Amino acid sequence: MRILFINPNTTAEFTRRVQETLDLYAAPGTEAVACNPAAGPRSIECVYDELLSAAPTLEVAISQLDQYDAFVIACVSDHPTVYALREITDKPVIGIFEASVYYACMLGYKFSVVTTDEAWEPLLWDGIRHFGVAERCASVRSTRLPVLALESLTPEETGRVIRSTSEQAIGEDGAEVICLGCAGMSGMDKRLEQELQVPVVDGVVAALKLMEGMVGYGLHTSKKRAYLHPKRVELPNLPPVFGRAYRD
Amino acid sequence: MRILFINPNTTAEFTRRVQETLDLYAAPGTEAVACNPAAGPRSIECVYDELLSAAPTLEVAISQLDQYDAFVIACVSDHPTVYALREITDKPVIGIFEASVYYACMLGYKFSVVTTDEAWEPLLWDGIRHFGVAERCASVRSTRLPVLALESLTPEETGRVIRSTSEQAIGEDGAEVICLGCAGMSGMDKRLEQELQVPVVDGVVAALKLMEGMVGYGLHTSKKRAYLHPKRVELPNLPPVFGRAYRD
Amino acid sequence: MRILFINPNTTAEFTRRVQETLDLYAAPGTEAVACNPAAGPRSIECVYDELLSAAPTLEVAISQLDQYDAFVIACVSDHPTVYALREITDKPVIGIFEASVYYACMLGYKFSVVTTDEAWEPLLWDGIRHFGVAERCASVRSTRLPVLALESLTPEETGRVIRSTSEQAIGEDGAEVICLGCAGMSGMDKRLEQELQVPVVDGVVAALKLMEGMVGYGLHTSKKRAYLHPKRVELPNLPPVFGRAYRD
Amino acid sequence: MRILFINPNTTAEFTRRVQETLDLYAAPGTEAVACNPAAGPRSIECVYDELLSAAPTLEVAISQLDQYDAFVIACVSDHPTVYALREITDKPVIGIFEASVYYACMLGYKFSVVTTDEAWEPLLWDGIRHFGVAERCASVRSTRLPVLALESLTPEETGRVIRSTSEQAIGEDGAEVICLGCAGMSGMDKRLEQELQVPVVDGVVAALKLMEGMVGYGLHTSKKRAYLHPKRVELPNLPPVFGRAYRD
Amino acid sequence: MRILFINPNTTAEFTRRVQETLDLYAAPGTEAVACNPAAGPRSIECVYDELLSAAPTLEVAISQLDQYDAFVIACVSDHPTVYALREITDKPVIGIFEASVYYACMLGYKFSVVTTDEAWEPLLWDGIRHFGVAERCASVRSTRLPVLALESLTPEETGRVIRSTSEQAIGEDGAEVICLGCAGMSGMDKRLEQELQVPVVDGVVAALKLMEGMVGYGLHTSKKRAYLHPKRVELPNLPPVFGRAYRD
Amino acid sequence: MRILFINPNTTAEFTRRVQETLDLYAAPGTEAVACNPAAGPRSIECVYDELLSAAPTLEVAISQLDQYDAFVIACVSDHPTVYALREITDKPVIGIFEASVYYACMLGYKFSVVTTDEAWEPLLWDGIRHFGVAERCASVRSTRLPVLALESLTPEETGRVIRSTSEQAIGEDGAEVICLGCAGMSGMDKRLEQELQVPVVDGVVAALKLMEGMVGYGLHTSKKRAYLHPKRVELPNLPPVFGRAYRD
Repeated sequence: MRILFINPNTTAEFTRRVQETLDLYAAPGTEAVACNPAAGPRSIECVYDELLSAAPTLEVAISQLDQYDAFVIACVSDHPTVYALREITDKPVIGIFEASVYYACMLGYKFSVVTTDEAWEPLLWDGIRHFGVAERCASVRSTRLPVLALESLTPEETGRVIRSTSEQAIGEDGAEVICLGCAGMSGMDKRLEQELQVPVVDGVVAALKLMEGMVGYGLHTSKKRAYLHPKRVELPNLPPVFGRAYRD
Repeated sequence: MRILFINPNTTAEFTRRVQETLDLYAAPGTEAVACNPAAGPRSIECVYDELLSAAPTLEVAISQLDQYDAFVIACVSDHPTVYALREITDKPVIGIFEASVYYACMLGYKFSVVTTDEAWEPLLWDGIRHFGVAERCASVRSTRLPVLALESLTPEETGRVIRSTSEQAIGEDGAEVICLGCAGMSGMDKRLEQELQVPVVDGVVAALKLMEGMVGYGLHTSKKRAYLHPKRVELPNLPPVFGRAYRD
Repeated sequence: MRILFINPNTTAEFTRRVQETLDLYAAPGTEAVACNPAAGPRSIECVYDELLSAAPTLEVAISQLDQYDAFVIACVSDHPTVYALREITDKPVIGIFEASVYYACMLGYKFSVVTTDEAWEPLLWDGIRHFGVAERCASVRSTRLPVLALESLTPEETGRVIRSTSEQAIGEDGAEVICLGCAGMSGMDKRLEQELQVPVVDGVVAALKLMEGMVGYGLHTSKKRAYLHPKRVELPNLPPVFGRAYRD
Repeated sequence: MRILFINPNTTAEFTRRVQETLDLYAAPGTEAVACNPAAGPRSIECVYDELLSAAPTLEVAISQLDQYDAFVIACVSDHPTVYALREITDKPVIGIFEASVYYACMLGYKFSVVTTDEAWEPLLWDGIRHFGVAERCASVRSTRLPVLALESLTPEETGRVIRSTSEQAIGEDGAEVICLGCAGMSGMDKRLEQELQVPVVDGVVAALKLMEGMVGYGLHTSKKRAYLHPKRVELPNLPPVFGRAYRD
Repeated sequence: MRILFINPNTTAEFTRRVQETLDLYAAPGTEAVACNPAAGPRSIECVYDELLSAAPTLEVAISQLDQYDAFVIACVSDHPTVYALREITDKPVIGIFEASVYYACMLGYKFSVVTTDEAWEPLLWDGIRHFGVAERCASVRSTRLPVLALESLTPEETGRVIRSTSEQAIGEDGAEVICLGCAGMSGMDKRLEQELQVPVVDGVVAALKLMEGMVGYGLHTSKKRAYLHPKRVELPNLPPVFGRAYRD
Repeated sequence: MRILFINPNTTAEFTRRVQETLDLYAAPGTEAVACNPAAGPRSIECVYDELLSAAPTLEVAISQLDQYDAFVIACVSDHPTVYALREITDKPVIGIFEASVYYACMLGYKFSVVTTDEAWEPLLWDGIRHFGVAERCASVRSTRLPVLALESLTPEETGRVIRSTSEQAIGEDGAEVICLGCAGMSGMDKRLEQELQVPVVDGVVAALKLMEGMVGYGLHTSKKRAYLHPKRVELPNLPPVFGRAYRD
C-alpha cells in the first residue's frame, strides 16, 4: 500500500525528518512518502500561516489522489486541509495531531501535548475540542521555543527543554501520556520516553500505523453528511488543478 | 467610521445584496462597503471551497487594512479567515454567522439556523460548537436548496421554503429565534419575521451593528494568546502581498 | 431612541457613575438614562440582596415600559429581573454582565471577570454557565474588596488592586480580555486597558452599544417558549403596579 | 425535628395538599409544617411571578428561622429563595424540584419531568442545568394544562393527562423515572406509579425525606464561598424584617 | 426496615467500623447491618481489586435479597456491583460514594473528595463523571496514605493528614463541602467538620439516611432500560448461587 | 507479534467467529488468537453478566500475560477487565467497542452503534461517555434481537434487521459511520457496508489493526496515575492465580 504524508510547510528539512521516521516504522509492504508543497510558509505558527499553506497543500494532494491509498497532513495542528481532503476523496485521511491524540487515549486516561511556541497552546486546544476529546486532555504546554529553533538548537538542548516541559505536564497537570506537539519533534519520542517513563507519541508514526490499519481493513471515509463529495462550482481566476477535485 | 464586508465568494450578485442590506441599516456616520475577491469559488458549499476562498479573501483584506476600522467576513460559516484577520490586525473582526448567533442569544434562549444545502448542517454545527454556545442552539436545519438556487428561484418560492423549514425549527426543535443561514438570504429577515412571529436575524445586519458598537466603544481585538500578531516567516513562491501581514 | 438603565441597588452614586459613562458613549440620537429604585439594598452582594432588589427594580421598569425602546439592568450579575423583563415586554432587554461577556467573546478566545468581593466568584460563574459560554471563561477573580469600598478608596488605590488582579487573570489563567465585574467600576476601562494591554470591557458601554444595535435593527425579544408573555394571575396583597405587567 | 415547607404561592389549597402529603409521610418524631405567604401571586408560572413571590417567601422564612431545623421551598422550580435561604441560615434548605431530581438519579439513569404549562419547560431545564445534572435528564414534558387547572379538573381527568404525557416521556424519550413537575400534583405519585410501572417521585416527599436525613445526620449548609452569610447592607424603604437576616 | 451494608473487601475491622457508624446514626425502627464477603481482596485499591471483589460481594447480596429492604455497597468507589444489584432487585441500592456526592450537592455548590492513595484520584473522578455531577466537583485529593495505613497510624496522625489535605481542597480548589473518600475514614466526620468549619460527609451515614428515606417513601429502582431485570443465561462452571439472580 | 483476543463469554461459537475474522485480516507476521474462559455466562447482556465474566476472563489473561504482546477484550461493551488488564500489564490493551469507536471518529464526524438487545442501549452510551467521545455519537440503536438470536436466525434474516436499524441511524440520527454493536456480528461488516453505502466498523478488526500498530510502534500502556501497577493485597479464599497479577 502507498501512503502520502504532506508536510504543509515548505521547509524540506522537516519533510526529510518525517521521511526518516517513516522509513524507520513503515511495515513491510508499506510505501510511505513524505513531501511538501513548493509554495507557502516556511513554518506554520498561526491560522494565517495555516491558510496560506492550504491551497498549495491541496494542490499537491489533488495531483496525487490516484497514486496513493491514504493521505496524511503532517502538521501538528487541526489543519483544515484534512477536512477538505476527506471531502474530495473517500480514501482515509488523517492529520498527525488527531492521530497522536487517539493513540494517547488508548494508552492512558489523560494526555498532554508538548508544543513549541506559546501561540500554539490555544490553537491545539481548539483542535482537541474539535476532535471531541477535550475531557481526555490534561494540558497543552509550550516549551516557548519557536518552531524553527528545533532546527538551530543542538538536539541535546532541544531535548532538555522538551523533557522539562513534559515533566511539568506529568507532575502538575496529571498527564499519563505525552503527545509531541510539532512535526519537527519527529524522532525524539523513544529517548524522551525513556527519560520520562511514560509513553510518548509521535503523530507521524501514529498516523502511519493508523493508515496502515485502515487500508489493511479496506475502510473508506464516509461520504454521508460531513464529508459529502463537493458539488462542482466555478472557480474564476484560480488554477485549473483545483477544478479537478470536483466530482463530474 | 468605515467597515469593510468581504463576501469570500466571487458572485457579485451576493455582494450587491449584502451592500443593499448595509445601505438600509448603516447608522449615520457609518460607511459600510461590501466587496468580494476577484478569484475563488463562485459559491462556498464545503471546507474545500472555503479553503480555496481563503487566500483571495485575505489578499483583499490585507490591501485595505489601513482603510477601514473593522472587518466582516460575509459568509454564513465559521470561515477561518476571521481568525487569520484577528491575528494580523487588532481592529475588530467578525463573521456574519458568529454575529447572528450572539444576537440570537440575547433575544431568546434557543435559536435555530435555517440554511440552504444539507451539507451545511454539520459545518454550521461545528461553528456553533467552536463559538462555545452549542447549548443555546436548538437545531440547524437545511431547506435542501443549493446556495445558488437562491439566485434562480423567485423570491416567493425561496421565501416559502425557508418559512416552512423555520416553522419546523420552531415547532419541533423549540427554536425561539431564527438565524438566516446563508448570506444570500440577506434581506429576507423582516418579511419572514412577520410570518413566523419570532425574531429573525440577518447576520449581515447583526455584524454591522456589532462592529458599529465595537468601533464606537473604541475596542480592539486582544493580541494576547489566541490572536497574537504573527511572527514573520518566509513565504517562498507566494505573492508578496501576503508578507505585508507580518509585523516588522 | 431611548434606553433605560436601571441600577437595581439604591446607591445614587452608582447610578450617577453609570450615567456619566452613558453620556460619554451614547451615539447621536440615543437618549440613555440611568436610574435606580427608591427601595432596596444599598449594594447587592449575594442572592438575598438580589431578591430584595427584584420587586423595586421591576416596579421602576413597569412604570416606564412605554417610555423606552430597550431596558438594561445595570448590575454585574445574572440578575433575575432581566428574565422577568424579557417576559413582560418584547423590547430588547439585557444585563450589563451578559453584555460584557458577549463583547469579550468577540475580542479574544478566553476572558476573565475581575470582581470585588470573593462572594461574587461563585455567583458570576453561575451566570456565565447560565449564559451558556462557560468554556470561553478563563477565570472569575475577586479583588477581595467589598463593593462599597469602590466608593471609599481613592481611584488610584482601587485601580491598583484591580490591575494587579487582572494581571493574575492574564498571566496565570490565560485571559485575553478582562470584563469589569462590578457596575461601580464603570469608567475605569480605558486606563486599565492601557496598563494591561488587553481589551477591558465595561458592561455599561457594551449594553449601551448592543441595545443601540438591537433597536437600530428593529429586533424584539422572542415571545416563544422561554420568554412567553405571562398569563395574568391574581396578586393578593401586592401593590397594584405589578398587575400592570400582565397582558390583558 | 421540625421542618418548614413554604409554598411560595398564595393558594391555600396548594399548601393544604402539601400538608396532606407531609402528614402521610413524616417519620415519627418529625413535625413537618406547610405554610404560604399572605402576599404574592396565586400561582407561579414564570420568572416574573417567581420574583414577585420572593420577598414574601423570604419574610415568612426569616420570621421562623429559629423555630425550624430545616426549610423547604415547595415549588417545582429552581426558586431563587432556596439560595437566599442557604445564605441567611446554615440549616439545611432544599427546593422540592432539586429534591425530586436527586431522588430520580438514584432510581434510574434517566429521568423526565412532567409538568403543567408549556412555559415551564425551558424554566425547568434551566434548573436542571443549574443543579449540574443535565445529562441525567431525558426530557421535560408539559401536559399543557395551566397550573390552576389542577384545581378545576377532576382528579381522574388530570391523572389521565399526566399519565399520557408520562408515557410519552418513557416511550419516546427514554425516561426511567418520572418527577412530578408541579407542587399541585402532590399526592398523585403512587397511583401514577402503578399505572406507569416506573418510579414516580413527588418532590414534597423527597424533600421531606432528604431533610429528615440531613437533620438526623446533623449536617449544615456550608458557609464557605457560594452560601457565605450575607454582610449587612442598608435597606432603605424596605420592611425592617429583611434586616434581621444579616449577621450582626 | 432492614438495610444491608456490604463492605466488598475482606477486612473485618473495616466492617466493624461501618457497623459502629450505623449503630450511631440508624433511626429508631431501622436495622442496619454491615457485613463483608469471606473471599476477596483485603483492601480495594484499583479496578483489578474491585473486579476480584465483585463475585463474592454479589454472592453475599443474592443470598440475602429477601431479607433486606435496601442494599448499600460500602466502598468509596463507583463499585460496579451497585449497578448489578440494581439489575437483579428492584429494592433501592446505592454506593456510599454516590450517596456522599448527592449529600454534598445539597450543602454547597462545590465539593471535594479527600481520599487515601493517589491511585484513587482518577478512579473517583471517573465515578463522579459517571454519576453525571462533574461540574459540582472542585477536586479529588489524596492524602497519599495507603488504605490500610488507616489501620496502623494513630487516629491523631491520620486525622492530621486528612485535615491538611482537606484544607488544601478548601483553600486552593474552592471546596465548600468535603466527602470522606474511604470507608475506613468512617467516623472521622464530626471532628474534622469542627476543625475545618465546612460540612464533612461520611458516605456511610449519607447512604443510611438516603435508604431510610427511600424505603420510608416506598420507592423502588426502575426496571425500565438501564436496570432491566437480567434475562436468564446459562452460567457453565460458576457456583449455582449466581443463577438465583435471574428472573424465572 | 502475538495478540490475544479474549471473548469473555463462554460461547465457543462466538470465539470461533472472532477467530475467523482475525484469520481474514491479520497482517503477515501477526499471530492473532481468540479464546474464551471455561466458566461464566454464555452471553453477556447486562452488568451482572459482565461482572460474572470478569474473574474468569482475568484468569485467562493472567495465565498468558507473558505469551502475548497485546490483549483485546472481544466484547462490545465497556468491559471493566480492559482497565484491570491495563493495570496489571504495560502491554497494550483494548476492548473491541472502544476500538470501533476511535475508528469511526476518523471516518466521519458522527457515528452510530447498532446493537442487539435494547438493554445494551444505556450500557453502550455509558461506555461512549466514559471513552470521552459522546459528542461524536449520533445514536445507539438496538435491533431488539437478543444476543443469542444471532446464532439461531439465518444470516439473511439477521442481516435484514441490522440493515434496517442502521438505515434509521443514518436517515434519522445523522450517522455517517456504523459500528457493529455485538461481537456476534463480526464478519457482517463488508456486506452491510455495500448495502448502506457508509463505512461499517467491526471492532474485532479495528482492535486487531490498532494493536498491530501499537506493537509495531513499540508503545506501552502508561503506568502513571490511571493504570498504576496494583500494589499487592492479600486475597483470602481466592484462587492463587489472581495473586500473580501483583508486582512483587
